[in-house]
Amino acid sequence: MLIERPVPVDAGAAIARLRDRFGDRVQTGAAIRDAHGRGEGLHDIMPPAAVVLAHSTAEVSAILAVCNDTRVPVIPFGVGTSLEGQIQALHGGISLDLSAMDRVLSVSAADLDCRVEAGVTREALNAHVKSKGLFFPLDPGANATLGGMAATRASGTNAVRYGTMREVTLGLTVVTPDGSIVRTGGRARKSSAGYDLTRLYVGSEGTLGVITELQLRLFGIPETIAAAVCQFDSLRGAIDAVVAILQLGIPLARIELLDALQMRACIGYSRLEGLAEAPTLFLEFHGAPAGVDEQVAQVGEVAALNGGGALRWARAQEERTALWTARHNAYWAARSLRPGCETFATDACVPISRLAECILETTAAAEALDLVAPVVGHVGDGNFHMLVLFDPADADERARAEALSEGIARRSLAMGGTISGEHGIGLHKMGMMAAEHGDALAVMRSLKAALDPRGIMNPGKMLPG
Amino acid sequence: MLIERPVPVDAGAAIARLRDRFGDRVQTGAAIRDAHGRGEGLHDIMPPAAVVLAHSTAEVSAILAVCNDTRVPVIPFGVGTSLEGQIQALHGGISLDLSAMDRVLSVSAADLDCRVEAGVTREALNAHVKSKGLFFPLDPGANATLGGMAATRASGTNAVRYGTMREVTLGLTVVTPDGSIVRTGGRARKSSAGYDLTRLYVGSEGTLGVITELQLRLFGIPETIAAAVCQFDSLRGAIDAVVAILQLGIPLARIELLDALQMRACIGYSRLEGLAEAPTLFLEFHGAPAGVDEQVAQVGEVAALNGGGALRWARAQEERTALWTARHNAYWAARSLRPGCETFATDACVPISRLAECILETTAAAEALDLVAPVVGHVGDGNFHMLVLFDPADADERARAEALSEGIARRSLAMGGTISGEHGIGLHKMGMMAAEHGDALAVMRSLKAALDPRGIMNPGKMLPG
Repeated sequence: MLIERPVPVDAGAAIARLRDRFGDRVQTGAAIRDAHGRGEGLHDIMPPAAVVLAHSTAEVSAILAVCNDTRVPVIPFGVGTSLEGQIQALHGGISLDLSAMDRVLSVSAADLDCRVEAGVTREALNAHVKSKGLFFPLDPGANATLGGMAATRASGTNAVRYGTMREVTLGLTVVTPDGSIVRTGGRARKSSAGYDLTRLYVGSEGTLGVITELQLRLFGIPETIAAAVCQFDSLRGAIDAVVAILQLGIPLARIELLDALQMRACIGYSRLEGLAEAPTLFLEFHGAPAGVDEQVAQVGEVAALNGGGALRWARAQEERTALWTARHNAYWAARSLRPGCETFATDACVPISRLAECILETTAAAEALDLVAPVVGHVGDGNFHMLVLFDPADADERARAEALSEGIARRSLAMGGTISGEHGIGLHKMGMMAAEHGDALAVMRSLKAALDPRGIMNPGKMLPG
Repeated sequence: MLIERPVPVDAGAAIARLRDRFGDRVQTGAAIRDAHGRGEGLHDIMPPAAVVLAHSTAEVSAILAVCNDTRVPVIPFGVGTSLEGQIQALHGGISLDLSAMDRVLSVSAADLDCRVEAGVTREALNAHVKSKGLFFPLDPGANATLGGMAATRASGTNAVRYGTMREVTLGLTVVTPDGSIVRTGGRARKSSAGYDLTRLYVGSEGTLGVITELQLRLFGIPETIAAAVCQFDSLRGAIDAVVAILQLGIPLARIELLDALQMRACIGYSRLEGLAEAPTLFLEFHGAPAGVDEQVAQVGEVAALNGGGALRWARAQEERTALWTARHNAYWAARSLRPGCETFATDACVPISRLAECILETTAAAEALDLVAPVVGHVGDGNFHMLVLFDPADADERARAEALSEGIARRSLAMGGTISGEHGIGLHKMGMMAAEHGDALAVMRSLKAALDPRGIMNPGKMLPG
């Protein structure tokens, strides 16, 4: 993951023109540039030449027109929580900060949808709609902006029930590189009217245009929410239970796996009592009372058949919060296993029938490489993360960590999976894109050339050169 | 909808080259050309110059290479059930018949997915997977090929629960116009690895390439399936009940609306006993027994609050089949209202909060135009069809029918909806594309130019010239 940075593009003329219009919303101080030059958990800062704070779609249009005219790179920026180097300014240029575009534009309880500016975070949206009995389910962990979540096709713990950003995004406002403002999709639940531009921009990581508004699905807060943990004799038993749950069509809202090592970390970090250092499923059920009770009974039976213990329930809000806070803090808990270490998260996603095998081979590989690498998984989707800890000062360990990461991506592909379940490609996974997509990569390159002919949108990302 | 046909392209050289390789699988008889030159319910035949029957992806590649070389149009063809003129050979050329590519390539019960060739029909797939306890839920009415369903982004009665072809298609094999074979997506439930080519080809109506294989999600046959009908005092009451059901998050598998006129047709045509000529919801519940009972009770309460009568149940397979057969036959029932008439189906889809208003205004417009036009609706999605009956020999009536259709599309757009919920654009809706998409149409044109630079793929469709 040590990426050589080319000589940055000269953005001087563009910055001068932007200053004329936006004044001190064009910032070139070292601190703000550095803060915009790396994502979460990354070490190599690649600062942009300037940061421009946009307040409206019209302003984004004006900024892009200047950058397109001067062929200066533009990197859309939300709150900087991306994980694969998406916002590092490889070729310099402008970081286009959308965090001030944070208005919830409309909410419809009848239609279960809303329109938001791209800088609204998922937590802010949930705070906004809660009083209407609504919620936005996607939860990738970080309090990311919704624009950023769309750009990376994020998902997280609720995706098994509610889908990913691909499914919950009904439409977008996008500014194309030449400054045109286009609206994609709409408010209808489905449409067969033309190419699916919404799904093309979702997951495009800022390489085709800038998402400035989103029309998103919302959901009614369920009448009954129940959470539970279930501990298993073996990792395979835990995953076999998940496969059975999916096959039975039990509509769980969340099914999260933590391996024994990650449980050790969480028990220590979040002071979880009464739980063993064993493979564990965190479960959440949404529905009406009788349906939830029935799901619970079904899951209990399935767990028992697969070496699982009794389900430990958390129906009260506080207990549920404690449980899911521990899950949310898994990243920090993992880091506490080796204080001073750095970490990165792998992101394989495989067909569920291969998940046990994939995780077991992966944990064996980590052991063989003498690495500390706990596992957390959105196992209902076949997606798991290994949090690989390494000492950044130890070049050999860093090399082993990277070897592990590449091995996981190759294993995922060999099993019919993907190199990225939800974090995207950015800079770090580009080297594996050809292995995943083959000749389809040429189609992706044609799309990029057609929609960003001057190559100003987040250049050097996602598509290998 | 009277479309002037340009002079067809000279396909002679291409046909000769194709004959060299494919012999009598290149057909130029009038009957087969005519059968490939119109869709369902359409009258204006625009035959291709030849029909070529492909047996494999490699053959499709060879056919496209010839046609690209000679700049001859290619129109992918499944079983000819599209409704908007998608397969009419506006500019002549080759109808590429995929119906012989009808193998189910693999089925995984553990992963709840399958891979099929594009010519497999949805009924054939269901027959194939039933013994494994699986089913493919999408049901657009016609026994369409899965390739055709993907190409038009089809959905139907189960979409409220299981999604449309957009949601259930995990990946594709696509042959691009120059004959390249690309695989999009994969078997992972989700992926953030690059542009979403799968969703780009789904709904592209054969204008970007030829879909030859599909990786599709399957679902376990539910433990309990219950069906019911509920009749209402008013159309508004029926739709208000649907809105309440959606807001409560009751996970119905189907919620279909038939208006009083359509009920009159169905009662006569399918000999439904004990039902009145009143607005009616057809409902289907999937799940485990207690959950289904609870859903039933909730729906009963909601219906009563909105002027609905008691739910009439059909738990036994035969009763359910009778009920849904009547729903399936709604089209033929409607035609029986005026024997000898022709019909077409409108396809508006609006935000659910506007659905009652949209349907009521539309039925009033039909009355004002003195047209017989019953309504059936996939109301859980906000989608409804009006089956407009007209005497093809009566030019004035045909003109009024077309005025009604255009009015519905404009009304849908004015309410934040789409001109096509599930039938696509083809030839017939092209005139409304600019009204729906505005500047986004330019982006669609860029995509078309990038991926089909010679314009051989189903030319003259979807994107207005």
